[in-house]
Amino acid sequence: MKTTHEILVETKNALPKLTASKERKNAALLAIADRLLAEQKEILKANRLDVDAARERYGEVMIDRLTLTPERIAGMAQGVREVAALPDPEGRVLRRVERPNGLVIEKTSVPLGVVAIIYESRPNVTSDAAVLALKSGNAVVLRGGKEAFRSNAAIVAAIRRGLEDAGLPAGLVGFIEDTSHLSADELMRAVGYIDLLIPRGGAGLIRRCTENAKVPCIQTGTGICHIFVDETADQDKALRIIENAKASRPSVCNAEEVLLVHKSIAPEFLPKLRRRLTDERAEKRLAPVELRVDPAAAKLIPGVPAGEKDFDTEFLDYILGVAVVDDVDEAIAHIAAHSTGHSEAILTESAENADKFTRLVDAAAVYVNASTRFTDGGEFGLGCEMGISTQKLHARGPMGLEELNSYKYIVRGSGQIR
Amino acid sequence: MKTTHEILVETKNALPKLTASKERKNAALLAIADRLLAEQKEILKANRLDVDAARERYGEVMIDRLTLTPERIAGMAQGVREVAALPDPEGRVLRRVERPNGLVIEKTSVPLGVVAIIYESRPNVTSDAAVLALKSGNAVVLRGGKEAFRSNAAIVAAIRRGLEDAGLPAGLVGFIEDTSHLSADELMRAVGYIDLLIPRGGAGLIRRCTENAKVPCIQTGTGICHIFVDETADQDKALRIIENAKASRPSVCNAEEVLLVHKSIAPEFLPKLRRRLTDERAEKRLAPVELRVDPAAAKLIPGVPAGEKDFDTEFLDYILGVAVVDDVDEAIAHIAAHSTGHSEAILTESAENADKFTRLVDAAAVYVNASTRFTDGGEFGLGCEMGISTQKLHARGPMGLEELNSYKYIVRGSGQIR
Repeated sequence: MKTTHEILVETKNALPKLTASKERKNAALLAIADRLLAEQKEILKANRLDVDAARERYGEVMIDRLTLTPERIAGMAQGVREVAALPDPEGRVLRRVERPNGLVIEKTSVPLGVVAIIYESRPNVTSDAAVLALKSGNAVVLRGGKEAFRSNAAIVAAIRRGLEDAGLPAGLVGFIEDTSHLSADELMRAVGYIDLLIPRGGAGLIRRCTENAKVPCIQTGTGICHIFVDETADQDKALRIIENAKASRPSVCNAEEVLLVHKSIAPEFLPKLRRRLTDERAEKRLAPVELRVDPAAAKLIPGVPAGEKDFDTEFLDYILGVAVVDDVDEAIAHIAAHSTGHSEAILTESAENADKFTRLVDAAAVYVNASTRFTDGGEFGLGCEMGISTQKLHARGPMGLEELNSYKYIVRGSGQIR
Repeated sequence: MKTTHEILVETKNALPKLTASKERKNAALLAIADRLLAEQKEILKANRLDVDAARERYGEVMIDRLTLTPERIAGMAQGVREVAALPDPEGRVLRRVERPNGLVIEKTSVPLGVVAIIYESRPNVTSDAAVLALKSGNAVVLRGGKEAFRSNAAIVAAIRRGLEDAGLPAGLVGFIEDTSHLSADELMRAVGYIDLLIPRGGAGLIRRCTENAKVPCIQTGTGICHIFVDETADQDKALRIIENAKASRPSVCNAEEVLLVHKSIAPEFLPKLRRRLTDERAEKRLAPVELRVDPAAAKLIPGVPAGEKDFDTEFLDYILGVAVVDDVDEAIAHIAAHSTGHSEAILTESAENADKFTRLVDAAAVYVNASTRFTDGGEFGLGCEMGISTQKLHARGPMGLEELNSYKYIVRGSGQIR
């Protein structure tokens, strides 16, 4: 077993070899896609071991996230091909000025260097992260969770062989073999070896990064997303949007966790909502949503009384916090107090309130009359994503290829002095 | 005396009041400029106390950086007016897509929130930082050095009265009264109160931030800048550029600290360089430059033998490290090993080597045939600067108004679900 430090050294040393042409990078990505398909059997075999081991300890949702199938591997390979086809983010001239003294200054996009990612459970993140990093000109260090260790190792083996097929060093994709907290902590402190660390996982991991990281770090993913139903909202649309935001895929970070309803429509709207999310879903054999209601909502509909933490919890489940608010200002204040800065929505027909909400709510994505579920690189037209940043520095919201680049100023002169 | 925490709370609470119109922000900046001029006497009086106290402990360069004059205060006020006249960075639509499902997604620039800056000595940074933060829609927390404490306090008092003249809360510009390490450390840990911390000062401060900061942080300023004179360089231009880069203002971060010379021209070039930087400057009554020479250079010119640390030191003085290298590749390797990622230059007539150098050198600004002294917000056409980032995340190189903004995605729909 290689130590984490050995892998960091290997990746750092491989990086200069990636100053390759666009064509070569893309050829490597296509070779990786081929290898993922060619080594499907090995990957599925490794995955079966992970899934069997996980069954004893995890529920359905986790097992589903962990499980690979031939279709999912084909999807992975297809994803790699799609990334290869995206515009190359490196070397874009972001701004060009010619100064009065004749200096020509070009602000030019460049790779960050070595991007490290700490992630949990889903093995397809392994290939997504590797190819996004490579396409944007970065080397990558992958540190997955222990549940998916064997799957990740098999996927990385295929990726590394793909790199070698294309004449690039396997070391460009480093894979940390220690899945304990120790290796995560070592990555957080690997100054000089890591240019960007992306923790992609639960709130605990993000907090550990915020508290301990010495390398530049982008927090992703925690989403306590709110939808506020204003008094002028189209209520039929609102029911449809809320069901979609909450129940179409509750385990993801852009799912709704808290519903805020204007007091003037709450007596009419909340009973309709309860029917939609519980009885009607049960009739359709869909999982009903448990409502955790604040005292004002409790007067209007049955539900579990909301506990102290229910408005600060990312449930990632068929559970929805429900609160009644006086108006858009109280909704904005509630969001300011409880939001993780991911995705927030207002459903309203008032242009004035929509404008106030989008202006004052401080989050990566602020919606008017749409589901929060759209916060996603693909849905935003970026083609893909490395994660969803919930911080304000460098990148905010879905991180695509451009967000994995920095820039430098290239200044060309003919002897200018100041 | 207010505690650091009290000031952070006051600034955070003032921030929402800044969601003001462009006109109001600019009116506040003009009021600040007026106040700086109107309160010139108080500022100069306070500055005199600082300068008198500093004389006992500091040399000429530091005293010059610290000293204010009526002209410098007029320059400060003029600088404020120029910032007011710059384009407003807030609310720019950076990208707009209309998706096939009808969603309209606008990536829109927004302020970061509360920007804190820890800086040393120069009191004009106080007004620069405050007005850049305000113009870009941020509140600001200022923590200057103890040498300039009285000057900074007087400048902040004028700025706060200017804000009040324009009907904005004085709390938008917080001023930390504790100038000990304790307050700097508290700012580094003020999660929830500070959205961006900019340490602007010596290497020690930057290192403390890297090691201790829990809030998002941008490192600025340390510049071990290299100039490489390639074998094809125009030697007359090279002499002029090197003298400018080293000696026009040695105390600033974009000054050259190390010269690398191609071995094939070193025997001809180094003696000319030595004459230019020592004898000729002495004849003109200019401070001569001390050359710290590596063994190969020592065979060609007299000079102080370079010690172990001389190629890793930001001298900020009339001192230049000199080394002979085999070729552009060795120059690039030397820079990779010793650079702080600030500004690096190649002087060459070879397009191929210029291209290689700009491609492979990893720094905020990479120059061909020009002085490193141009790395500056004004010289780059940004109108101003908050500091010069030497990191790769968020902002690199001179940070102007745009770099003090983040963005959010504003998504407008008509009932879309996923």
